[in-house]
Order: sequence, then C-alpha cells, then structure tokens
Amino acid sequence: MLSDGSISQAVYQAQTRLTSLSSHLRTSKSKIVVCRDLGPDVMPLLTKRDDIEVVTWTEDCVCDREWLLKNISGAVGIVIVFSELVNAELLDAAGPNLKVVSTMSVGYEHIHVSELAKRNVRLGYTPDVLTDAVADISVMLALMAGRNANETMGIVREGLWPKFIWAPFALCGPQLSTSGISPSRTVGFLGFGRISHATLARLIPFGVTDCIYSSNPNSAASPKKERDEALLKQYRPQLKSLRPVDRDTLARESDVLFILAPGGPSTRHLIDEDFLRKMKKHSVLVNAGRGTVVDSDALAKALREKWIWGAGIDVVEGEPNIWKDHPLVKEPRCNILPHIGSASFETRLAMATLAVENCLAGIVGQNMPAELDVKAS
Amino acid sequence: MLSDGSISQAVYQAQTRLTSLSSHLRTSKSKIVVCRDLGPDVMPLLTKRDDIEVVTWTEDCVCDREWLLKNISGAVGIVIVFSELVNAELLDAAGPNLKVVSTMSVGYEHIHVSELAKRNVRLGYTPDVLTDAVADISVMLALMAGRNANETMGIVREGLWPKFIWAPFALCGPQLSTSGISPSRTVGFLGFGRISHATLARLIPFGVTDCIYSSNPNSAASPKKERDEALLKQYRPQLKSLRPVDRDTLARESDVLFILAPGGPSTRHLIDEDFLRKMKKHSVLVNAGRGTVVDSDALAKALREKWIWGAGIDVVEGEPNIWKDHPLVKEPRCNILPHIGSASFETRLAMATLAVENCLAGIVGQNMPAELDVKAS
Repeated sequence: MLSDGSISQAVYQAQTRLTSLSSHLRTSKSKIVVCRDLGPDVMPLLTKRDDIEVVTWTEDCVCDREWLLKNISGAVGIVIVFSELVNAELLDAAGPNLKVVSTMSVGYEHIHVSELAKRNVRLGYTPDVLTDAVADISVMLALMAGRNANETMGIVREGLWPKFIWAPFALCGPQLSTSGISPSRTVGFLGFGRISHATLARLIPFGVTDCIYSSNPNSAASPKKERDEALLKQYRPQLKSLRPVDRDTLARESDVLFILAPGGPSTRHLIDEDFLRKMKKHSVLVNAGRGTVVDSDALAKALREKWIWGAGIDVVEGEPNIWKDHPLVKEPRCNILPHIGSASFETRLAMATLAVENCLAGIVGQNMPAELDVKAS
Repeated sequence: MLSDGSISQAVYQAQTRLTSLSSHLRTSKSKIVVCRDLGPDVMPLLTKRDDIEVVTWTEDCVCDREWLLKNISGAVGIVIVFSELVNAELLDAAGPNLKVVSTMSVGYEHIHVSELAKRNVRLGYTPDVLTDAVADISVMLALMAGRNANETMGIVREGLWPKFIWAPFALCGPQLSTSGISPSRTVGFLGFGRISHATLARLIPFGVTDCIYSSNPNSAASPKKERDEALLKQYRPQLKSLRPVDRDTLARESDVLFILAPGGPSTRHLIDEDFLRKMKKHSVLVNAGRGTVVDSDALAKALREKWIWGAGIDVVEGEPNIWKDHPLVKEPRCNILPHIGSASFETRLAMATLAVENCLAGIVGQNMPAELDVKAS
C-alpha cells in the first residue's frame, strides 16, 4: 500500500513529466522561471496564464544553482529573491530570449547590473511597498534600544525576575518621548529617503522636536530644500526644525540615530569608531538599512564602553553568518533582529505581487511598475 | 592602612551618629521617613531643608520592615514605593503625628486606604507623569508582538541565523501599519484613560483607522461623548471612528488590543478564555496595565493554540514571582518585560520628585500636587 507521501510523490513526478511534455509540444509559450514558491495568493498570477510556462523551484530552501542553470535555458523572464546571484554565467545559460530579471527585493547587490545592460535585459525590483514595514521596525528598534528590551526580556526568560531587586532607577533607560523635564528630542537620519520620511512621521506624536539628516553619498540631488520645507510645514508646530547636516553634527546632536542608507562601497563603515565616539552617552543607534554601513566591532566597543546607550539593528555586516560569539550578539544593550524589516504578511505579499507584475510587463515590452534603469546604474 | 571602602564606611558611621545626635537635640524638626534612596537629583529637596529630619533606608533593597516600624515612630510623613505595605500595624507604629503617606507609584494596591481615612492621614501618589513612558512601552509591545520580536531575537541569540532558511513568508507577522492591501486597522482599549489616549495618539501615523474601547468597570462616568467627539475630531481624517463598545465587540473587532486598566477584584481575569477565543487570529494583545486583568493560563493556551497571533506584556499576575517554567515564559510568541513601563530616567525622576513634593505639601496642610481622596476610595 502506498503511503500518502508516496502518493503525492508519484503525483508530483507525473505532473513533472506532463509539464515537461506539454511545454515541449506547445513551444509558443513563454517560459518564466520562478526561484521560490510565492504562495497561493501570488503564484496563480502566473500559473493561470495559458500563454506562459512556469517553471518553479518548489523546495523550501535556496534555489539549487545547477537546477537553475539548467532550467533557465530559453526563459524570457526570471523571478528571483536575493539568494540568486545574477551574473554572466546565469545570463549566458538563459540565452538570448531573456528579457527580464525581476527580484523580490529592494536591494540588488546580488545582481551584476552591468551584465544586464550589456545584454539589454531589463531589471524589476520592489521598492516603496516595504516602506511601512521597515518604518515600523525602525520605530520598534528605537524603543527597544532605549528601554533595554533585550536585557530586560532576558531577566524574565532566565527566571531572574523573582530575584530582581527593584530600585527607583533600576532598569531605566532614556525615554523616546519628550517629557516635562526633557522637552526636546533630536532624531537623526543617515540616508533620508522614503523609509526615513515614514519613520519621522511615526515619531512626531512621541514629541520629536528636531530632525537632522545626512544624505547617503550615492544620493543624486541632496539636500532638497523644497522637500524639507514641505516636511517641516507638515509637522509644525511639533517639529521645530529639519535640516541637512554634516556627519560630525549628525553624530553629536542625534538622540536617536536611524541608519537607513543603502549598502555598497560608498557607505561601508560610515559608522565607525570615530563617529560613535562623538555620539551622546544616552543616544541610541538603529540600523534597518544595510549591515555594511556600521563597523560591528566599533559598535560593540561603543556599547561595551558605554559611549552610547544602546542599539537596535535589523542588519549586520556578514549576515546571515552571525554566530553566538559575534561581538554584537554578546552585548546585552544590542537588540538584534535577523533582517525581518520587510517581513510582514502584507508587505511580502505586495513584494511578491510586484515582482510578478514587473516580470509580466517586462516580457511583453510594457512599462514595468518598478524598473531599475540598468544603463544608468 | 585603611582601604577606600573602610574610610567611607567609617565616615558613614560617623555621619549616622551625628545625624542621630542632631535630631535628638533639635526636636522641633519634622521627621520624614524615606523608604528608598531617591537619587542625587531628588534627595536634596528633603535633605537641604533645615526644618526637616530625614531618615532614609539607604540599602539598595526592599526597606526592612523592622527598621521601618522602629523608625516611623513620630514621623509626620513617609515616602514609600510599592514594596511597603501600609496597613494598621504601620500606621499605629507611626503614631498620631503622621499626616501624609506619599507613594512613588500610580497604583496603591499596597496601601490600606480605609485605614488612612480612619486616621485622617492623606495619601499622595504619582499619576500622569508616567503616561508617556507607559504609552511608549505599549506601542513597543504592540510592534514586538506583531513582528515576532522574542522569537526572531532568539534566532540570533541562539546562533541559528546562519542556518535559517529564508522563504518569502518566513518569520512574517501581521503589520501594525496599514498598507495598500490592508487599508484599515482597529485598535481596542480596555480602560480608556490618559495612557490609552497617549497610546492612540502615537498610533495615528501608523494608519490606524478605527478606535474602540470598553471603560474599566471602576470608571465613574463612562463613556464620555464630548471627550470622544473631541478626540475623533483631533485625529480626523486618518481616524474614521471612535466609539465605546461592549467587551464582546472589543474582542471580536480589535486588531491590536491594549489592556490599560487598573487591577483589583473588579477587573480580575476580564481577559479569560472566553474573551480570547473571540479574538481575531492575527490580532495581538498588549498588557501594560495590571497583570491580574489577564488570566495567564488562558493567554498561554490562546498563544499555543494560535487563537491570536501574539502578546506583549509588561505585567503578569503574581509578578515578580514569574519563574522560567511559567506557562507564558514558555510561549515564544509572548514578549514579556519585567514591569518596566515607567522605567525611564525622565519618568522615574518626575515620579520621585512628585512623591517628595506631595509629602512636603501634605505635612504643612497645603494642596498636594497629586492627592488621592482616601475618604472617597
């Protein structure tokens, strides 16, 4: 008797043979390779189309490179996540039919953009739709870093609460909200794009009074006077000032500093020992941008030696290879999340949908909802 | 040769003898007993007064009962924290001079209010000044409960990040902010006082569209139509509705439910199995009020059996005796803090200052900045 597992395996194998056969017979279909199952809400956008042959890596793990190199041959489009390296090898394996690479991510460090440009392959990505999810995480990390979430949750987890000796100032941290005796609060942003704006918006009712920022070095036209005036007008009278500053001022004046800049060589280790030494003792640092922007050893030292109060980070240089003995994991004042900034159901669904829409539009030469100009990058 | 420690001990002993002597000589001084060192910013408000004798429990632990019963004799005022039980025994030990009990807390479960009333002793407490600190923690816990903070931080702490298999919807949780595909969000409040209002204010830029509440059963005049209309007007057009509801509706409609009600018999286990079973599958529960309002076993069951998505709690029934094997500590979707809602430097400083001001005003028969009417309670 066949077990349920064997039956589904048999059905699966049969389906695979049928799919292979039908694609062989109906050669007019456009092949799209999808490197991860995008779930029951999104996959039908592809699978229900008669004019498209969908080849999906269905395993719940990183798409096998060999499988991909084999299956991409003749594809017109490919939907990937950040684990797929798109380089000359992959593009050559795809061949001249390939029109679109569509990544379900806002970053594109895994894509050799110049190789796409050479071959006239278009690139779709998923900016904007993750703005709110990452802004939420940024606010959460700012609160957690100030109010010692990692340290105090550890007290409960380790069963030490019953032994904890209460004192008027025990377990205290700096308050995000302004108060009568501390009526001003300056938030700083390294990188002042959409996610920073969404984060600032959320912080206004916490009583933030001043906003300073340094644009990331890649940013084309910054600072932007009109935009800044509009933002300030929107949040007045709570917000008293909003202005671009140099990085020295950003370090010295921020009560809460948000790193929301992209990665890459131009932002690598902008936050180093020199920067951290200039920060306020009760300030907190939040990194929901890219791990490479912060020198991890310098941040660990800053926390250990109490140059700053705490940190909340969703990204770490070298992730995901962050082991138990990583210097930041060992710091109780460092609140670390495993890069879940965009990990809400709503946002990942929107990202997957956008990735598919980009691919479908691109293969027929239409405007893609979110295309990155590979020739300009 | 004396070590530094011995020197300070010798100096300390000498000072103690001198203080004792001088208080003996100048009997016209009013004695105030302070049950915890309130720190270098607040203690001078008492110690620099020539007309007051201050007797302070200086150890960094709960004030010894025997010490207190002995030293309170003849005091006109006493400044306490929540660990001091104020009952007939203590009041009798104080004697007829006692005019004021001033607690550095907003709750007064540790005080037998009727015994104060019998003796015409006034009661000072510290409401309002902790509103912002607790509202901050409430927002933090709502975000942490939705976005799986405890669970995902555990992945990093345990060194499992390198082995984590990324998938489009892995580690996802419900998003606090509204988004294009999920454009409405209902927040519910059990107890709708100042802290709830401050929490609601912070949530408006997250895109909250609807607010519902059930007043705590102790609340005198609720619902309050004019107040509600004013709040709604303030947050329009983002907020579409604000209304009082019964507890059944509160359970069924809240995406995020905040428990910000006081403790005591009338609110005990208002959140029980029946209530939790009615909640939405993707809803989260935040308790920054009192632990007794929530039946811990029922909440643990709700999390284990996924009736709701997650919980963020700063208070637990029976705290601080919450051990490692407590059913809630064992639930990964339960984010637990050791009652640090008011634990920010700014707020504790304000609370300690207010406690001293209450005491100083009360002993001379003046209006106290925050007095609880013991005859009405």
